[in-house]
Amino acid sequence: MILTVTLNAALDVTYGVDSLRPRTSHRVDTARERAGGKGVNVARVLAALGHESAVTGLAGGPTGTLLRDGLRTAGLRDELVTVSGDSRRTLTVVSRDDGDATVFNQRGPRVSPGEWKTFTEHFASLVRDATVVALCGSLPPGLPSDAYAQLVRTATGAGAVTVLDTSGPALLDALGAGPDVVKPNAAELADVTGSRDVPAAAERLRALGARTVVASSGPEGVHAATPQGAWRAVPPKQLAGNPTGAGDACVAALAAGHATGAQWPDILREAVALSAAAVPCPVAGDFDAGTYRRFRTAVSVEEVHAAHTH
Amino acid sequence: MILTVTLNAALDVTYGVDSLRPRTSHRVDTARERAGGKGVNVARVLAALGHESAVTGLAGGPTGTLLRDGLRTAGLRDELVTVSGDSRRTLTVVSRDDGDATVFNQRGPRVSPGEWKTFTEHFASLVRDATVVALCGSLPPGLPSDAYAQLVRTATGAGAVTVLDTSGPALLDALGAGPDVVKPNAAELADVTGSRDVPAAAERLRALGARTVVASSGPEGVHAATPQGAWRAVPPKQLAGNPTGAGDACVAALAAGHATGAQWPDILREAVALSAAAVPCPVAGDFDAGTYRRFRTAVSVEEVHAAHTH
Repeated sequence: MILTVTLNAALDVTYGVDSLRPRTSHRVDTARERAGGKGVNVARVLAALGHESAVTGLAGGPTGTLLRDGLRTAGLRDELVTVSGDSRRTLTVVSRDDGDATVFNQRGPRVSPGEWKTFTEHFASLVRDATVVALCGSLPPGLPSDAYAQLVRTATGAGAVTVLDTSGPALLDALGAGPDVVKPNAAELADVTGSRDVPAAAERLRALGARTVVASSGPEGVHAATPQGAWRAVPPKQLAGNPTGAGDACVAALAAGHATGAQWPDILREAVALSAAAVPCPVAGDFDAGTYRRFRTAVSVEEVHAAHTH
Repeated sequence: MILTVTLNAALDVTYGVDSLRPRTSHRVDTARERAGGKGVNVARVLAALGHESAVTGLAGGPTGTLLRDGLRTAGLRDELVTVSGDSRRTLTVVSRDDGDATVFNQRGPRVSPGEWKTFTEHFASLVRDATVVALCGSLPPGLPSDAYAQLVRTATGAGAVTVLDTSGPALLDALGAGPDVVKPNAAELADVTGSRDVPAAAERLRALGARTVVASSGPEGVHAATPQGAWRAVPPKQLAGNPTGAGDACVAALAAGHATGAQWPDILREAVALSAAAVPCPVAGDFDAGTYRRFRTAVSVEEVHAAHTH
């Protein structure tokens, strides 16, 4: 079983409007809601690929109830832990005239030390049945900055492979616990290392404790720095669209690849194909099956020898 | 008792962001929620003025539950009728850098004929104890276009004064039932009559059945066409700010004036003072007590003889 963790789970709301014009009133023509947060989106992709998964993390309040209803609708196994605060919403306003999206992210409910303790106990019990744990997204207010380090240690101790997709201090503070894979995008990687040289920055995160770094560069593919060497995987064609969905699909492929014991070049091929297949879909967690089928045999994966410098 | 009716009650949500930039992601620093919809805002103003009131209308789903929690918090009497659909949200995004507001209005849940019948029965029972009924805002999908006409007839039959604040077809279709007061703003009045001449357009709505038309022109005050003559009431100073709040405060003053049996010039003085006092407040239903106190003795009310032409 692949366990996905979303500590700041959200209800993703999408408003359709004619055209977004600041300082005016808009009539919302369509309002769609679905369970979200990166780990939930990863679980959706895993379910579509036929992998057994479970969703854990924190949710609460009336928004948490809607979110859990959404998990049930999607057929995802709900292992969320209830908190007293109201879960956050993320709102995406999509303009019909140009398809452009404007996003509003709430911070999430404050989590108490007692709620965090309850979660870590539930996580320790779940992780015993997990081959891979995907830890995804931001930390809600109130959590210790080493929250992901704690979870990585617990998962590693239980024999699970850990895949971590977060940014900033939450990423930096987790490296010491030795996550198996971290998946920053190029901007997040530059943010935590201060370097825009992707291979050098990836090696820097490895030096800080990550076993493998898979850095995604949007339509240009991924660079992977692993204990077995470094690779660059590039899609056959660049697609424009939804970068959030692409990141979550990439994490799903990394988790699925480890669950099935695949080799790095094959894992990266899948990761780039699934990411590219998610880009045309407006909602994270979806991917276009046709694009995925065509791209998975057409992604080029090349070993990068220059990155073996440390 | 003054009964306020909000058929499309809403949860009013306000997001605070640094600056609204289309096509980017925003972190929402503050997210406030409160019960809203025009009639709920009118009831808040009435409560602050010490008038006994009750809130009826339609609400449902998880958003309806939050809305009703908000009525309780505000100490307002909840006489809403439950519908199966989820109540709408209205979202106002306020930029910290310039204070500008961008508004997103959902349409509201579809109401079934059975739910409408249940509402009209509850309304008929409530209206027996009401001296004034304020009917406010848009109609949710599924209601007959003469919904307000039906309610005006029931209220008038029970001996209550009716004050109607709506626009478009919902306003036009109600006029035949003879509402005592309708309060369009200048744009709404032009929309239904095709005329930008406020006194002439107001007389036209009277000819269609409204006994009195109070047309609000934002900071320029109101024009009232009544069976006793026409008046123009102008605030001593023009304030810029929140026009929604001003309209709801105006309706509250019209309802309160009729509940206490005041004369038109005095009612209009109060209506303009309360509207002006609502303008500086970011949230509809609030007003600035100091502005109200200063303005209520300083509003000029003049009889308009030219309007006596029909």
